[in-house]
Amino acid sequence: MVGKVTKLKASNKAKANDADNGSARDQLLEAAGQIMREGDTINLSLSELSMRSGLNSALVKYYFGNKQGLMLALLERDMRFAVEEITDLVGRDMSPEKKLRYHLAGVIDTYYRYPYLNRLLMRMIRDCPPTDAANIADQYLKPISRAYAKLVKEGVSQGVFRDVDPQNLYFSITGSADRFFNARLVLRHCYDIDDVTEKMRDDYRQHTIDLIMAGILVR
Amino acid sequence: MVGKVTKLKASNKAKANDADNGSARDQLLEAAGQIMREGDTINLSLSELSMRSGLNSALVKYYFGNKQGLMLALLERDMRFAVEEITDLVGRDMSPEKKLRYHLAGVIDTYYRYPYLNRLLMRMIRDCPPTDAANIADQYLKPISRAYAKLVKEGVSQGVFRDVDPQNLYFSITGSADRFFNARLVLRHCYDIDDVTEKMRDDYRQHTIDLIMAGILVR
Repeated sequence: MVGKVTKLKASNKAKANDADNGSARDQLLEAAGQIMREGDTINLSLSELSMRSGLNSALVKYYFGNKQGLMLALLERDMRFAVEEITDLVGRDMSPEKKLRYHLAGVIDTYYRYPYLNRLLMRMIRDCPPTDAANIADQYLKPISRAYAKLVKEGVSQGVFRDVDPQNLYFSITGSADRFFNARLVLRHCYDIDDVTEKMRDDYRQHTIDLIMAGILVR
Repeated sequence: MVGKVTKLKASNKAKANDADNGSARDQLLEAAGQIMREGDTINLSLSELSMRSGLNSALVKYYFGNKQGLMLALLERDMRFAVEEITDLVGRDMSPEKKLRYHLAGVIDTYYRYPYLNRLLMRMIRDCPPTDAANIADQYLKPISRAYAKLVKEGVSQGVFRDVDPQNLYFSITGSADRFFNARLVLRHCYDIDDVTEKMRDDYRQHTIDLIMAGILVR
């Protein structure tokens, strides 16, 4: 009981400072994401994070417990949106073909914005304690997996999709999208091109939609 | 001139010890590959390498200069085969459709054996000095890129392939194959399944061939 009251008080205190807390917390997450994106890495140094965000790195401990907590919070920020997007999409009153097209475009755009997303997900799965890894599976992987299964089933039952394994399809699609991470690295270090342009993103989005849709639609 | 003679002598000495050198060098590479595969990581510790190979970690310095040199040599061991395979395949007297099918099967098998391959490639590109990164591009990326361009051109000119961008196709295919790395991690840490089985590899190989071939063949 004492524990509960203490928690409640702490939570009220946190709420009272919401504006400040929120913005410093968000700034740390934003800076972490930028460092990962621009450095083609998911390795964070607290000093770089502090420099980039303009905030004392002690705030990492305050808001997230430690660096791993911050990385988990970043994963949550970026993945929650992706999970909501596909869950919402699959539930809509729309043809399965159209849903898959929308989804493909969304995945490409997500990985263009957060090229580190898949690496971060895998790192957290590998390095977190087993209970956290199971939580990640419950919160992100299983809902996405269910959404894929539902979408494929719908398309197959309507006779528009080939009978593909939804999990394998998920691997193919996110694998393809994940290539932005590599593409940036290769362009930057081997060809001295500074970044993946929006034109390249648009071309790759169209390419992915064309390839996967032709790959799955019944002829 | 003196430099050349010295190099020649060193090279003769190396040749004289070829059997021993070769096997210790190969053992270190083999152990490094195993650590990466089993640990789902490309981070090597010299002490683990020494334990795994049963060799003194000073041999890393002797054969490879440093840890990065060993990682480059491992990349060379694994990538050279992949480059030769596609270059040879594209040059054969065979239909472009058949070539692509063979290639897809080969890529899946390569990434099943070396799930760390793409990570290692990207790490080397990022962390090596610019001249080494350019060498990696020259030795591996450009030959593969040329082979893809040739294969797609052949298929398009024969009217069997859609007119896809070869570089984007390369991203889609290797991106899909790279998913074994992730699949292993997810299965192991979230679902307590110890490894990707050969049956899963075979299913995913067939899935990839079906999806990509349907995606690229003219209807």
